[in-house]
Amino acid sequence: MDHETSRRWLIAERPIGRALSLDDFRMSTAPLPPVGDGQVKLRTLYLGFDPALKSWMENIAGYAEPTEIGGLMPGMGLGQVVESASPAFAPGDLALGLIGWQDIAVVDAGRLEPVPAGVPPTAALGVLGLTGRTAYFGLLEIGRPRPGDTLVVSGAAGAVGSVVGQIGKIAGCRVIGIAGGAEKCRWLTEELGFDAAVDYKAEKPRRRLRDLCPDGIDILFDNVGGEVLNDCLGRLAFGARVVICGGIARYNADPRDPDGMPAGPRNYFNVVFTQATIQGFLVHHFKDRYPVADRRLAEWLRRGDIRQGEDILHGFENAPLALMRLFEGANRGKQLLEIGAPA
Amino acid sequence: MDHETSRRWLIAERPIGRALSLDDFRMSTAPLPPVGDGQVKLRTLYLGFDPALKSWMENIAGYAEPTEIGGLMPGMGLGQVVESASPAFAPGDLALGLIGWQDIAVVDAGRLEPVPAGVPPTAALGVLGLTGRTAYFGLLEIGRPRPGDTLVVSGAAGAVGSVVGQIGKIAGCRVIGIAGGAEKCRWLTEELGFDAAVDYKAEKPRRRLRDLCPDGIDILFDNVGGEVLNDCLGRLAFGARVVICGGIARYNADPRDPDGMPAGPRNYFNVVFTQATIQGFLVHHFKDRYPVADRRLAEWLRRGDIRQGEDILHGFENAPLALMRLFEGANRGKQLLEIGAPA
Repeated sequence: MDHETSRRWLIAERPIGRALSLDDFRMSTAPLPPVGDGQVKLRTLYLGFDPALKSWMENIAGYAEPTEIGGLMPGMGLGQVVESASPAFAPGDLALGLIGWQDIAVVDAGRLEPVPAGVPPTAALGVLGLTGRTAYFGLLEIGRPRPGDTLVVSGAAGAVGSVVGQIGKIAGCRVIGIAGGAEKCRWLTEELGFDAAVDYKAEKPRRRLRDLCPDGIDILFDNVGGEVLNDCLGRLAFGARVVICGGIARYNADPRDPDGMPAGPRNYFNVVFTQATIQGFLVHHFKDRYPVADRRLAEWLRRGDIRQGEDILHGFENAPLALMRLFEGANRGKQLLEIGAPA
Repeated sequence: MDHETSRRWLIAERPIGRALSLDDFRMSTAPLPPVGDGQVKLRTLYLGFDPALKSWMENIAGYAEPTEIGGLMPGMGLGQVVESASPAFAPGDLALGLIGWQDIAVVDAGRLEPVPAGVPPTAALGVLGLTGRTAYFGLLEIGRPRPGDTLVVSGAAGAVGSVVGQIGKIAGCRVIGIAGGAEKCRWLTEELGFDAAVDYKAEKPRRRLRDLCPDGIDILFDNVGGEVLNDCLGRLAFGARVVICGGIARYNADPRDPDGMPAGPRNYFNVVFTQATIQGFLVHHFKDRYPVADRRLAEWLRRGDIRQGEDILHGFENAPLALMRLFEGANRGKQLLEIGAPA
């Protein structure tokens, strides 16, 4: 009985107020329970990673299910059904859910979704998952693009940013990405159709944006915060919309300490001169409308208007490293971990 | 010929990157030119003061008429016509305009407006001038109040803030002011009808706002920036609107140095959790609609729904001191300087 036990990554420490470390995770082996009524046994093929998982580990974000020290590390996974006691899934089916970091699991079928047909299965962890929905609602509902707008995306080579830029092109915008490194910038312009890319590691965004956006930035989609956000706020056009989606620089601050957060952007006051709007959002605010977003994103993916960028690490033992890559800006596109191939 | 010369305050230095000083101004006496066709001779009764005058002196704000070192200090004034070569004004009429800091002047009648009837004449420098319009458009167009909203106003005892709070009451909001000192706070609640006031000099706004706004802040009207803005951003309700109107803490920074501005609010990222909007404006963006605002503000003033707070200093020689009071938070309501009484 090969699969009577599962390997699982547990939370060893809460990484509050500091960067993640390998010591925050502990691998363990646990016997698999029998498959009860309404449950399935799922062999994990891929795990998907998102910066919010660090907040979940800290248990203080207030917008996620609580976690426990010594408890299973949460996370999205894509797996293949091995055994089923639910009419919803048959053995061999691919399924998706918040299954946590385990290589095989017995889970309630109600916590799983089928994987959409006609697209690569990993798209369900990216463009057709919360990543794509975040890009869709953030850009279209908060950013409100109009054809001809200049859209600047920070963290443009990340999972969300790379989709935002591609949706921006569909919406008729001129799209400029800000990313770290020549390779990422080339990827944005040559493979994803961005009009230009700024390598913030090699050039000053402030100066480059002045050349690239002579009429100012109409939409800024910010995944980063810090100096890049500040530089962009200095170049807003009249009536600009600034979408605050992420702030990778903030993840290592202690949210319980109101004075411990990094400084905000000095240039926030430019909204006075430009009558610009800075607005944030959480994707679950749009939950009722996920089906519409999913249908449109799937259609764009099938037509090739959007490509899913993937950065795939291999081996279950590397799950903590895969998560840590996000905070180092190491990933290009959606960070995934491949654990097995479908049978 | 008593009035053949006028006393005038000139700009001696540009106060860039520092606080105002008396040495930035120089008094001079100049002969009055004859009253030409289409001109009037106006004896100044009141000057009105606004923090933007410091930016005008610096000549780098980009949204005002240029000034010159050695040139007349700009500013709004209210005066009485002494002699007229224009059909628009007769001797004895009160008139208003950007006449600069001079005690008597010959000006083109086209640069003057009549003073509205039925209200105290100084209202034309406050509630019925740019001060009232700023409060009106900032709150109603950018803040978009709904009855039942909790409105927090920083710099609440200032010229704009005190009007914002009173318009908020007309709009059915619960209004909380933040001001410096018990006397100002008493004035807000006992004379202007604010529901509560926070004395930021005597108590921590962060703690007090937690008690006063258990359901969060729906609208924040910010005249101040700095720590008060940061504290308020930490208490936003879902869907809150933050109106950035002023930032008194920024006036002493050098706007030519992009790194020289004070830090922005650490809590800006709370817009993510609340889907809140931070938006700024300049009142002249609404220029086309001044007549509507002026009619409504005049009606509210006549009905007693709005009272104009005034802080009056006396004597032409005190004009620089009157302006400096704004940056010390010394004024309660609109800072005016009385120079003479109508004949």
